[in-house]
Amino acid sequence: MIITLIGGTGDIGEGLALRWAHDTDHEIRIGSRDPQKGIDSAAKYESELSQRGKERTVLGGGNSEMTEGADIIVLSVPPYYIVDTIKSIESAISPTSIIVSPAVGLKRSEAGNFYSSPPPSSRSVTEYAADASPDGVPLIGAYHTLPAHRLSNLDDPLNFDTLVVGDDASAKQIVIEISNEINGLRAIDAGALENSAEVEGITPTLINISKSNKDLKDLGVEFK
Amino acid sequence: MIITLIGGTGDIGEGLALRWAHDTDHEIRIGSRDPQKGIDSAAKYESELSQRGKERTVLGGGNSEMTEGADIIVLSVPPYYIVDTIKSIESAISPTSIIVSPAVGLKRSEAGNFYSSPPPSSRSVTEYAADASPDGVPLIGAYHTLPAHRLSNLDDPLNFDTLVVGDDASAKQIVIEISNEINGLRAIDAGALENSAEVEGITPTLINISKSNKDLKDLGVEFK
Repeated sequence: MIITLIGGTGDIGEGLALRWAHDTDHEIRIGSRDPQKGIDSAAKYESELSQRGKERTVLGGGNSEMTEGADIIVLSVPPYYIVDTIKSIESAISPTSIIVSPAVGLKRSEAGNFYSSPPPSSRSVTEYAADASPDGVPLIGAYHTLPAHRLSNLDDPLNFDTLVVGDDASAKQIVIEISNEINGLRAIDAGALENSAEVEGITPTLINISKSNKDLKDLGVEFK
Repeated sequence: MIITLIGGTGDIGEGLALRWAHDTDHEIRIGSRDPQKGIDSAAKYESELSQRGKERTVLGGGNSEMTEGADIIVLSVPPYYIVDTIKSIESAISPTSIIVSPAVGLKRSEAGNFYSSPPPSSRSVTEYAADASPDGVPLIGAYHTLPAHRLSNLDDPLNFDTLVVGDDASAKQIVIEISNEINGLRAIDAGALENSAEVEGITPTLINISKSNKDLKDLGVEFK
C-alpha cells in the first residue's frame, strides 16, 4: 500500500513514517508544503533506517505530489491547517483513498489542558476534517493519543493502543490493519466518527498527567 | 481510616468495599438509603471475605449513620442522585472528612455513548458534586474509569490505573494513597477539578470500545 504522511516532517507524522518504513513493506511518502523539506525529511528517515540495517526508500516532496496515487493519506497537521491542507491536495486525492486524521482539539491554559472542539459547529476535530474531505473519500480518526517523541524513537517498544473511529467500516478496518502492522501498537475500533470527541479528549488528560507527575511523561494508553 | 461507601450495595461501591476490606485494614462501612440493604450488603461482603480466609467486620446501615465519623465518603450513586444524597447526609459529614465522587456524565444513544455534562452549569459531574458539597469539605474525583464487575471480582488482578482530580492537594494525596493500597490499582494525579470532564469522558469511550469489540469487555485503562 502507498501511505503518505502529509506533515510527515515532524511530530506524529515522523514517528508513523519511521515505524511503517521499519516494520512493514508499504511505500512510505513524506509530504510537506515545502517540497524540499519533504525530500530532506525522507532522506533523514532513510539514513536512520539504514543505520539500523534497514535499507529502505522513503519518498519525499510536496503535499500534492506525494498524495497522487496514495492509498492512505495521514493528515499530520494542526487542527487549524486541516481545511487548507485538504483543499490544497484535493485534486490529487484518489476516490479510492482513505484519509486519516490524528489531530486533537486542545486548549492550553494556566489551569491545565482541556478538550476544545474546533471553531465551526463540528463536535470534534475529526468530524471537522471529515466535513472538509472530498465527497466519497472516507475519513478515519486514529493516532490521537500516541506520544510523538516515543513513536519516533524506534528503540521504544510502544506496547500501547490507538483508538480508531470512522463511519466507513471497510476503510476503518484497513486503518486498523495497517496500524496493527506497527510493532507494539494495537489498534482498537472505538466506534463511529460521532464518538471522536471523547477519543480526542484523552489527549489533554495525558498532558495533565504529565504536568502533575514527574515520572509520567510522553504517555500512551492501554485498554485492558 | 474509616471509609464509607455511600451506595455501597452495588456497582463500583461494592467493588471498592470488597477491595479495601480485603487488601487493607481500614474500617469499611456500607451506606444505603435503606439501612437494612446496607446491613445485608455488609454481611454479604463479610461472608465473601470469610470464604477467602479473611475474617473482617464490615459495618452496614443507613447513609447518615454510616457517614458519622467517616474520614472518606465515596458517593457511589448516579449523577442525578448526587445532590439529594449529599443533602441527606450533610449534617453527618465531619469537616475533616473527604468526599470522593466516581460518577460520570454519560449519555447513551443509538449512535453510541457520549460524554454529557450534568444539567446545571457545571462542566462535569465531579464539579457538580463539588458544588453541592459542604463548604470546607474537599471533594476529590476518582474511580471514574474502573470496571465495576471486575472490581468486585476479587480474583481479577486489575493491573490498571485510576485518575484522581481535585483542588485540595492534601486531600487528593490521601485519596491517591488509599487507592494505591488496593492491589493492582495505581492512582495517578490528573490535575484539578477543572480537568475532570476529560477524565469522565474516558468512560463513554470504554463502553464504545466494548460495543465494537467482542473480546474487549469491562475494560480498565493503563497509562504507560
